Amino acid sequence: MKEEKPLIFVTNDDGISAKGIRTLISIMRKLGRVVVVAPDKPQSGTAHAITMNIPLRLELLAKEPDYEEYRCNGTPADCVKLGFKVVLRRHPDILVSGINHGSNASISVIYSGTMAAVFEGAMAKVPSIGFSLLDYSPDADFDHAKEAIEKITVAALKNGIPEGISLNVNIPNNKNGGITGIKVCRQADGSWQEDFDERTDPVGRNYYWLKGVFMKADMGKDTDEAALEANYISVVPVQLDFTAHQALDEIKKWNLDV
Amino acid sequence: MKEEKPLIFVTNDDGISAKGIRTLISIMRKLGRVVVVAPDKPQSGTAHAITMNIPLRLELLAKEPDYEEYRCNGTPADCVKLGFKVVLRRHPDILVSGINHGSNASISVIYSGTMAAVFEGAMAKVPSIGFSLLDYSPDADFDHAKEAIEKITVAALKNGIPEGISLNVNIPNNKNGGITGIKVCRQADGSWQEDFDERTDPVGRNYYWLKGVFMKADMGKDTDEAALEANYISVVPVQLDFTAHQALDEIKKWNLDV
Repeated sequence: MKEEKPLIFVTNDDGISAKGIRTLISIMRKLGRVVVVAPDKPQSGTAHAITMNIPLRLELLAKEPDYEEYRCNGTPADCVKLGFKVVLRRHPDILVSGINHGSNASISVIYSGTMAAVFEGAMAKVPSIGFSLLDYSPDADFDHAKEAIEKITVAALKNGIPEGISLNVNIPNNKNGGITGIKVCRQADGSWQEDFDERTDPVGRNYYWLKGVFMKADMGKDTDEAALEANYISVVPVQLDFTAHQALDEIKKWNLDV
Repeated sequence: MKEEKPLIFVTNDDGISAKGIRTLISIMRKLGRVVVVAPDKPQSGTAHAITMNIPLRLELLAKEPDYEEYRCNGTPADCVKLGFKVVLRRHPDILVSGINHGSNASISVIYSGTMAAVFEGAMAKVPSIGFSLLDYSPDADFDHAKEAIEKITVAALKNGIPEGISLNVNIPNNKNGGITGIKVCRQADGSWQEDFDERTDPVGRNYYWLKGVFMKADMGKDTDEAALEANYISVVPVQLDFTAHQALDEIKKWNLDV
């Protein structure tokens, strides 16, 4: 009996020309049929934005046996919606997003277009994985990440991911002597400590540039930040229930309904 | 001893001219000193996007005793960051966002600029509440919501909200005979069932418009969707830990680290 090759959907938020997605495509083409729908320009920091005020466009860039590639003028979330509904007209066996140039560990997931695409996949009940490398450089070195990305994707295809849950995978950069291993962990608590550069334009009006540094608030050994600091790849199963279940009783004590 | 008026920060995602934020401002001015920093144009669907590629601008629109109002060319998340760091140069006692024209119940929170502002507040450890009305009309009727919004805000100022947790408040529209009461509940599971209108432009190129309907997947009596359907105001305590704690053990069984 001939085994059907899995259908793998690839997207990202750094745009279709980024080195990260080119690396991810090359890994996935070894594992199955690949369809790519990715933004035509960098979309870092777009989070889960969707496009409602301009028409969306799709452009076919490549069509080969077991391979199709499209670029889209929308956000990562748009790419997934259009990819599933218009390009595939079905659901893929798996969605992979990335490889992001930069960390999406801890609280960064909330700003992440890479992870927005992953959550779109999960909402469509497609097993979905986001891959991010802790190196923001456009020319980041992804070679040391390839083996683990393949391993995690194969494991997800084989085992399945529980419905509604996806994986947020962050990979150490290659500047500290290679990868120690892979750890399944929880999201560390943390926050971005921001500030603004205040400048004056040539006509005398003020303007502001956002700048920030990540502040760890939680170095529990079971967190993604702790794993990454020890050069482990972190794998965090993530979901979209925002409910603070532990706080329901406390808020109920406010007796709002009397 | 004279009691200090609380400092209340107001923002939204429908833009500073929207009827919803004008209503919210009028309620908050009765409760304390108010500073408004809101987007200069509608930002629905921007989710937690932040602006990194263009300079941010702030413009003072009004300055009265106990009241300041600014508009900003950024997203709701930008408005909060700029508001705290540049305008206030301190943290407010509470942040309120909205009143959104349209529901942010169930999974809609992930696309919501209104709730992105709230999460920014929570990350800065400021008690934060998002208010949304189940009516998308620009001329929606907010009158029946005013009393409850004031009550919930006063309760939050009095009781405090546990750190890292915020409130997602959704309010029935006034088309079904008024509000039954207020319920503290959990986020219902659900998803947007999307499709695209495929059209052809005057030069013969295809383009796509996103359209979607919300599909309830979960009508548990303890959910926001069930509360709203019974004309209750829903109050969901929300937080930003995306970890699917219940899935950690299952993913560990994949033995990725061997």
